[in-house]
Amino acid sequence: MIPSYGELAFSADRVRGMSGGAPWLLMEHSTSAVKWQPRNLAKSPGELTRNSLAHIGRGADGALFFQWRQSSSGSEQFHSAAVPHAGAETKVFREVEALGGVLKRIAEVVGSRVAKASVAMLFDSDSAAALRGGPKPTVDVNSLDVALTFHRELTSRGVAVDIVHPGSRLDGYAAVIVPTLFLLSEHNAEAIAAFATNGGHVVITAFSGIVNSHNRVRLGGYPGAFRDLLGVRFEEIFPLLEHERVTLDNGWTGSVWSELGEATTAQVVASYTEGDLAGRPAVTRRTLPASGRGTAGTATYVSTMLSRASAGALIDDLLARAGVGPVAAGDRGLERLRRTDGSRSWLFAINYAATPLSVTVTGLDLISDTRVEGLAVIPAGSVAVIREDNPCVP
Amino acid sequence: MIPSYGELAFSADRVRGMSGGAPWLLMEHSTSAVKWQPRNLAKSPGELTRNSLAHIGRGADGALFFQWRQSSSGSEQFHSAAVPHAGAETKVFREVEALGGVLKRIAEVVGSRVAKASVAMLFDSDSAAALRGGPKPTVDVNSLDVALTFHRELTSRGVAVDIVHPGSRLDGYAAVIVPTLFLLSEHNAEAIAAFATNGGHVVITAFSGIVNSHNRVRLGGYPGAFRDLLGVRFEEIFPLLEHERVTLDNGWTGSVWSELGEATTAQVVASYTEGDLAGRPAVTRRTLPASGRGTAGTATYVSTMLSRASAGALIDDLLARAGVGPVAAGDRGLERLRRTDGSRSWLFAINYAATPLSVTVTGLDLISDTRVEGLAVIPAGSVAVIREDNPCVP
Amino acid sequence: MIPSYGELAFSADRVRGMSGGAPWLLMEHSTSAVKWQPRNLAKSPGELTRNSLAHIGRGADGALFFQWRQSSSGSEQFHSAAVPHAGAETKVFREVEALGGVLKRIAEVVGSRVAKASVAMLFDSDSAAALRGGPKPTVDVNSLDVALTFHRELTSRGVAVDIVHPGSRLDGYAAVIVPTLFLLSEHNAEAIAAFATNGGHVVITAFSGIVNSHNRVRLGGYPGAFRDLLGVRFEEIFPLLEHERVTLDNGWTGSVWSELGEATTAQVVASYTEGDLAGRPAVTRRTLPASGRGTAGTATYVSTMLSRASAGALIDDLLARAGVGPVAAGDRGLERLRRTDGSRSWLFAINYAATPLSVTVTGLDLISDTRVEGLAVIPAGSVAVIREDNPCVP
Repeated sequence: MIPSYGELAFSADRVRGMSGGAPWLLMEHSTSAVKWQPRNLAKSPGELTRNSLAHIGRGADGALFFQWRQSSSGSEQFHSAAVPHAGAETKVFREVEALGGVLKRIAEVVGSRVAKASVAMLFDSDSAAALRGGPKPTVDVNSLDVALTFHRELTSRGVAVDIVHPGSRLDGYAAVIVPTLFLLSEHNAEAIAAFATNGGHVVITAFSGIVNSHNRVRLGGYPGAFRDLLGVRFEEIFPLLEHERVTLDNGWTGSVWSELGEATTAQVVASYTEGDLAGRPAVTRRTLPASGRGTAGTATYVSTMLSRASAGALIDDLLARAGVGPVAAGDRGLERLRRTDGSRSWLFAINYAATPLSVTVTGLDLISDTRVEGLAVIPAGSVAVIREDNPCVP
Repeated sequence: MIPSYGELAFSADRVRGMSGGAPWLLMEHSTSAVKWQPRNLAKSPGELTRNSLAHIGRGADGALFFQWRQSSSGSEQFHSAAVPHAGAETKVFREVEALGGVLKRIAEVVGSRVAKASVAMLFDSDSAAALRGGPKPTVDVNSLDVALTFHRELTSRGVAVDIVHPGSRLDGYAAVIVPTLFLLSEHNAEAIAAFATNGGHVVITAFSGIVNSHNRVRLGGYPGAFRDLLGVRFEEIFPLLEHERVTLDNGWTGSVWSELGEATTAQVVASYTEGDLAGRPAVTRRTLPASGRGTAGTATYVSTMLSRASAGALIDDLLARAGVGPVAAGDRGLERLRRTDGSRSWLFAINYAATPLSVTVTGLDLISDTRVEGLAVIPAGSVAVIREDNPCVP
Repeated sequence: MIPSYGELAFSADRVRGMSGGAPWLLMEHSTSAVKWQPRNLAKSPGELTRNSLAHIGRGADGALFFQWRQSSSGSEQFHSAAVPHAGAETKVFREVEALGGVLKRIAEVVGSRVAKASVAMLFDSDSAAALRGGPKPTVDVNSLDVALTFHRELTSRGVAVDIVHPGSRLDGYAAVIVPTLFLLSEHNAEAIAAFATNGGHVVITAFSGIVNSHNRVRLGGYPGAFRDLLGVRFEEIFPLLEHERVTLDNGWTGSVWSELGEATTAQVVASYTEGDLAGRPAVTRRTLPASGRGTAGTATYVSTMLSRASAGALIDDLLARAGVGPVAAGDRGLERLRRTDGSRSWLFAINYAATPLSVTVTGLDLISDTRVEGLAVIPAGSVAVIREDNPCVP
């Protein structure tokens, strides 16, 4: 299960993609519980600040709360607010007040931008809608779940990721992830192939590139738009039962989906170990001819929905291959984000864990107004925004 | 889970409350299975008589069955009847016939009343409807569940309880239970406070007194209508996940609900032990200044939904504090009820258990037409209606 | 749970019953996954052929596939086809092609008939619809589940079974199974009784013969239409909770349903062991007076829904009593079916298991074009169609 901050982080990265990288404004988030879930959990102490900073670190110039005063009647009666029913002497209002202080201290970041990431993830609402509409091999297939899983593995390693529309320019990225992008135009499929031909590294998961812009299946083998790029030809989908898992011969596990097919020009990275697909390829990789730039791109295909741990292993491999590192070196699990105005840069560090976590940085923590020399230790649940002595500018 | 006779007992006590204590008539109950459940369980041998007597012992002057002959067609085709499809030579009809004999033997109770109890429980359909209508912190919060849990703990101890509307007169009661009474008028809230000020003992559970008669939340802290009475100020609701449980530092456990807050003038009875609320008050008690009558009332607040065992422990404490005993001394689990006409009194004893249970009483068992001297032993599953030698009259 | 081939086998036997035994044509089945389930599982290698032959062995002269080419758009987009999206170089098309070869080799069976079975099972859509319509004692009662359980136990023993309408002629059968046949006319009930009176063996499960053709309950005791035939009188239905099981004193187990009643002229075969029904009859058998034919029929009643193993034990007993054997001697689990044109006969053997299974037969296997002398060993997952040297003709 993706924790709520994982979905929040994904959404914020996605909004920045929609804004073309320009600063944006979060129109609504909540100080604590919402009111539309079956069980509306309250936010833990500090969660309000972590959530707001996670948006601002991803390019928001502000993050508004709904609602100012908690309604005494109507359907938002038990939705949280800046001023709760109980008034100003509350955990929530104190945290809102403290957040106001934090924002004042970091006001200089307003108008700056998040530096372009080295990793892009392609996401498209039209594709997600096409995947939801009409009978599919299984009700469990869902591009958002796949995207969230990979996004979380990147974020927990401190790696920045841009979530962009498939029609976006891909040059400048080192790696591109295509998470179950069911519907895709020819033009955009060609752009992804060109990215790999030019030395980029692509990971494509099952049921991507299946239908064209008119929602018609590409014939000749799955995944139609990517068969040549990936060097594979899959012929039949073998959905899994609700709680069924498959194990691959490299120890990875998957759920929801499996496929019968073959590698044509790709290498087999991992094969299925059981059932009708035993011994057949599950994960493949094609190394493309070295590009004009002298580097060889790769195109990896994943024909099942990987578990979190397996997706993490794949991400580790991808980052090494693409030469992509974290925003700043630091402990696993510490969220690291950077904004820059071209001459200055600010490192945001957000610790969701119950233990202190560290990041390598030198500069001034604007929140605590203290110098950081080489290593910042972020207490459990805390945040820091450090103006870097050596600005990291594009 | 509350057994079906627990809900039946609660409903019968509630109908007596609606009738203002006057005898009433049960218009319909079933001889065995109903037909509107997914799985319509048959009644066990003797259950028909126990169910009817549980109504009569609570003030009904009669308890009719739906239906006379079991329908051969239509939607009541498999609803039980006095005369089943199989005819008169059946368990059901023999029990109906036997019940007719019992009712003839106890006919002298008709017109008598159930003596006013020492414990009142407040229940209000308007409040329950307001709680169901519109988004709430959790779909699991439900005043009936809370009421049934406390009612069962009282009943299994042989303690009589009146279930009355919050606008009823409370003088004469020793203890009042307010089970998640979400909507409450100012006037009725003041009456509850006055009851405690006059030496009464009140137990109030979470999400009581939250909105006024117009369904508007009382501001300033939860539970709005009772903050001063209880000496607490809760500020934020922390609903629990579906199967989550909280443990208190006195060993009690709760589900569904927890709250962040503080005792202002109350004592802390038990605190949460885990998570964001660790160390914060869960159950509180305020002892009021001694009243004109020379006794000090108490107001207890329970901010989670107690398990059955924990509710039982709280009830034991409440009964001791309020000096309330059972209708008649006897074994735990034996239901004891009393009706009186002002000069005579009848003790109803209903044994739902699989072993014999005893009650202290002297008189004539009208059902078996035998004398009881000091102790009546009620066989497993049986009932007795004893005209007492020393009538217990108000 | 009944595997999908169990339901397929039942349906094919049922369609033959509808056709009065004449050859029939399957208008649609699938080469692999369908598209209307939550999770549409692909067929395992060989399953396509096993499924087609299971229909043909049961009297189909052909078994068409929906669809020829897999749709590139529309709601059948991910329903399997003869020619998948991936084209002709696929597991599915190769199996379709191979099946074409098999059908050519066994073409001589076209127009032949399945020999009349010794066991009939009565099934009626009107009765199933009446059982689904309106409130019943439990939502779990379902005639198809009962029918499938008994059908599978017969099929796995290689025993042929005709599934016929209750109004069909029963003479010529040795045993008749009546699986929860809720609605039944007087006329058809009398025909079943006459069958037993003439020396036949009948098994009737709970909630059979309850209502007449006008959906009105027969009064006087359950199961109304069969009370005299069975020598029982049940008076009250005791449905079980969702996961509840009952154990009988012969070790059998049941679910969904139990009943309170007595044997009048029947012998008690097994009794309930627990709860309100402990010691009361669960399974009964009445041996009828020897018929004009000199043999004594039996009428067995089963008042609960037997587990698979218990149903198998009851079937073993029934087959021994009725002197019914398999289509051909062979290993448990091997499906055996026979068609004949009056002068020739063909034995179909279908192995659904993961190990080889054998059947006693001498003749020519048309599929492999090899002689079989005395014993055919059918490899795991394989099929054979053997023209028998000694034709088995009616």
